[in-house]
Amino acid sequence: MDIIDAIKQRRSIKSFDKNHKMTYDEIKQILELAVLSPTSYNIQNWRFVIITEQSIKDKLSELSHGQQQVSEASLIIILCADLNSWNKHPERYWANIPEEPRNALIESLKKSYKDKVQLQRDEAMRSCGMAAQTIMLAAKSMGYDSCPMKGFDYESVGKMINLPNDHLISMMVVVGKKAKNPSPRGGQVPLSELVFTNKF
Amino acid sequence: MDIIDAIKQRRSIKSFDKNHKMTYDEIKQILELAVLSPTSYNIQNWRFVIITEQSIKDKLSELSHGQQQVSEASLIIILCADLNSWNKHPERYWANIPEEPRNALIESLKKSYKDKVQLQRDEAMRSCGMAAQTIMLAAKSMGYDSCPMKGFDYESVGKMINLPNDHLISMMVVVGKKAKNPSPRGGQVPLSELVFTNKF
Repeated sequence: MDIIDAIKQRRSIKSFDKNHKMTYDEIKQILELAVLSPTSYNIQNWRFVIITEQSIKDKLSELSHGQQQVSEASLIIILCADLNSWNKHPERYWANIPEEPRNALIESLKKSYKDKVQLQRDEAMRSCGMAAQTIMLAAKSMGYDSCPMKGFDYESVGKMINLPNDHLISMMVVVGKKAKNPSPRGGQVPLSELVFTNKF
Repeated sequence: MDIIDAIKQRRSIKSFDKNHKMTYDEIKQILELAVLSPTSYNIQNWRFVIITEQSIKDKLSELSHGQQQVSEASLIIILCADLNSWNKHPERYWANIPEEPRNALIESLKKSYKDKVQLQRDEAMRSCGMAAQTIMLAAKSMGYDSCPMKGFDYESVGKMINLPNDHLISMMVVVGKKAKNPSPRGGQVPLSELVFTNKF
């Protein structure tokens, strides 16, 4: 599928065919593409919790104000991030480069993130945002639709997925076979109010 | 361009043809696609500051530890967000839907974001992350390459672009004609360490 078409046709879908099952290969393909999304210093800070079991999807739907797309979707991806990925064997992020530039990168990386709690969190959200859009566009090209979500009980979902203390949940993306077309786009702010040249 | 190919071939490029100029229509197309990226409650909280003037690119390069891709790229997009977009005429985000559901959405939106300073910031980073990936993939399909960046002096760049008090800068994306191929990917963490089923 052409990328421009995928960007234009991607919409947040609220109703999926509950009986459709995605294959293992399809799910793997989406995740293999997701991890080609960029991250700062290549820290690959995202962690993806995938759910396809109906009983868990139903529970997650309850924790999402009962939103039906969560129980109806074929696949739920909870996009989390490891806030300390910058400090967990960073040499693996540049395994393929010579030792000298690698060591310089590691030093710079640690200096950038050490004790910078807000920056670590910003990085989690940025990385997961980029990966989420990759997932949604990849899904589109495979004949699926998606819905990005943050309207759920983060604390309860965190407990449910056994979220480690130094991780956080950024958002959720549900993927499945669309059961109902979306309404036309709700209301687009004109480009002239969103784009500025040189400065505000 | 096929979307799977675009996702696979997109790399962070560090050297661009400094003499290449993008047309107004090309820049407009990228921005028109960027604003089709999803945002929570359709708040369209991103704001895009675009820069093509050489003197400003050079200044931004200085503020980015001298990174040459900033001065060489044809287009710099500084992805900012309005932290209060949820409270600025939210009725326009659902102009096309009936009044009753629109009012319910506005009430829910305000309840979600009012006084939630960290959430407003998270939303800025998530929204800009998704839009950044749209920009980078759209650029790829138009024969361009890109580099997402956060390694710059946020405070000085904020002053330079006259960033309003209730906005923040999430990141920068530079776009241009690639002058040098990137090295092979530095080191990919195996999927098995990034993906979890049902829980960690």
